[in-house]
Amino acid sequence: MTTTTTPETTTSIVDESAFLQALVQQVRAQDHYGVYRSWKDELVLANFVVSKEKKSQISVEGDVDPATQLRILCFYRAIAVCIEKETGKLCQVVTDLSHEGFGWAIVWTGRLMVLSRTLRDAQRFGYPSLKKLAAQGERLVDSGLKNIEKFPDAAEG
Amino acid sequence: MTTTTTPETTTSIVDESAFLQALVQQVRAQDHYGVYRSWKDELVLANFVVSKEKKSQISVEGDVDPATQLRILCFYRAIAVCIEKETGKLCQVVTDLSHEGFGWAIVWTGRLMVLSRTLRDAQRFGYPSLKKLAAQGERLVDSGLKNIEKFPDAAEG
Repeated sequence: MTTTTTPETTTSIVDESAFLQALVQQVRAQDHYGVYRSWKDELVLANFVVSKEKKSQISVEGDVDPATQLRILCFYRAIAVCIEKETGKLCQVVTDLSHEGFGWAIVWTGRLMVLSRTLRDAQRFGYPSLKKLAAQGERLVDSGLKNIEKFPDAAEG
Repeated sequence: MTTTTTPETTTSIVDESAFLQALVQQVRAQDHYGVYRSWKDELVLANFVVSKEKKSQISVEGDVDPATQLRILCFYRAIAVCIEKETGKLCQVVTDLSHEGFGWAIVWTGRLMVLSRTLRDAQRFGYPSLKKLAAQGERLVDSGLKNIEKFPDAAEG
C-alpha cells in the first residue's frame, strides 16, 4: 500500500514543474552510458539537492568538481530551454568558473543578455529541496522572459 | 646607425594603435614576476603573431595551452577596454573554451552583448603580423561600438 502511494507523491514535484522536467532532460542527455536510464526523475535530480549542513562540509578551497560544473551548466541550460519554449528564440549558455569557484553564468539570445549571474562558492552549488530548486529555476526563467519583453530589438539583433 | 633607426620603425606600430597599446597593458598586467618589465612592447606582443606555417604545425587535437587561453582572454579584454574608453560603459569579458579548442568569447555591457564570437581551433590563435592583429582588434572594437549605438537601452539595462 505504502509503496504505491509514495512514488505518486514524489513524482508530482517533477511532473508539476516544466523547469524540473527540462532539467531532467538536460541531465539525461549527459548520461552517455545509460546509467540513469532506469532511474526515476527525482533520483536523477537528487544531486541538485544539497542541505545546509552538507554545504558547510564542502570545502571552497580547491577546484570545482567537474560533476558540479556540469550540474551548474545543466541548470542554466534548462533555464535557456524553458525560455526558448516560451519565446521561440534560440538561447546560448556559457558558464565560466575560475578554479576558486567564482565565475559567471550567462544566457543570451541575439544581442540580448537574457540572464547574467555571478557565481560564488560554486563548489557548494545546490538547493535545499527539489521544491526550492524548481522555484529558483522558474524565477530565473521569468526574469529572462521579462528581459526579452523589455528589449525586443536587442533580442532580435 | 642601423640600431637607432630600427627601434623607431618597430615601436611605431604599437604607438599608432590604441588597440595594441591596450593589449600590451593586458599582457603586462599578467606579468606577475616582472619578466617583461624591460621588454619592448613589440616583444611583449610577439606571441600574438603566428605565421601560417607555424599554425599548420600546431596540433588541434589536445587541450588549449593555458598561455594561449590567456592570450585569447587578453585580446578580448583589450577590445573591452577600448570600448569602455570610447563609451564610458563597463564591459565584462568571458571566454569559454572546450578542451577541443572550440568555444565562445563574449563581451557585454548592461544587458547588451557587445560582441559574441565563436572560437575554433583556439590552439592556433594568432595573427600573421602585428599590423593584422591591430586591424582585427580595431574592427571588433568598431563593431562593438556600433552595437552599443544601435541598442542604447539594452546597453543601459
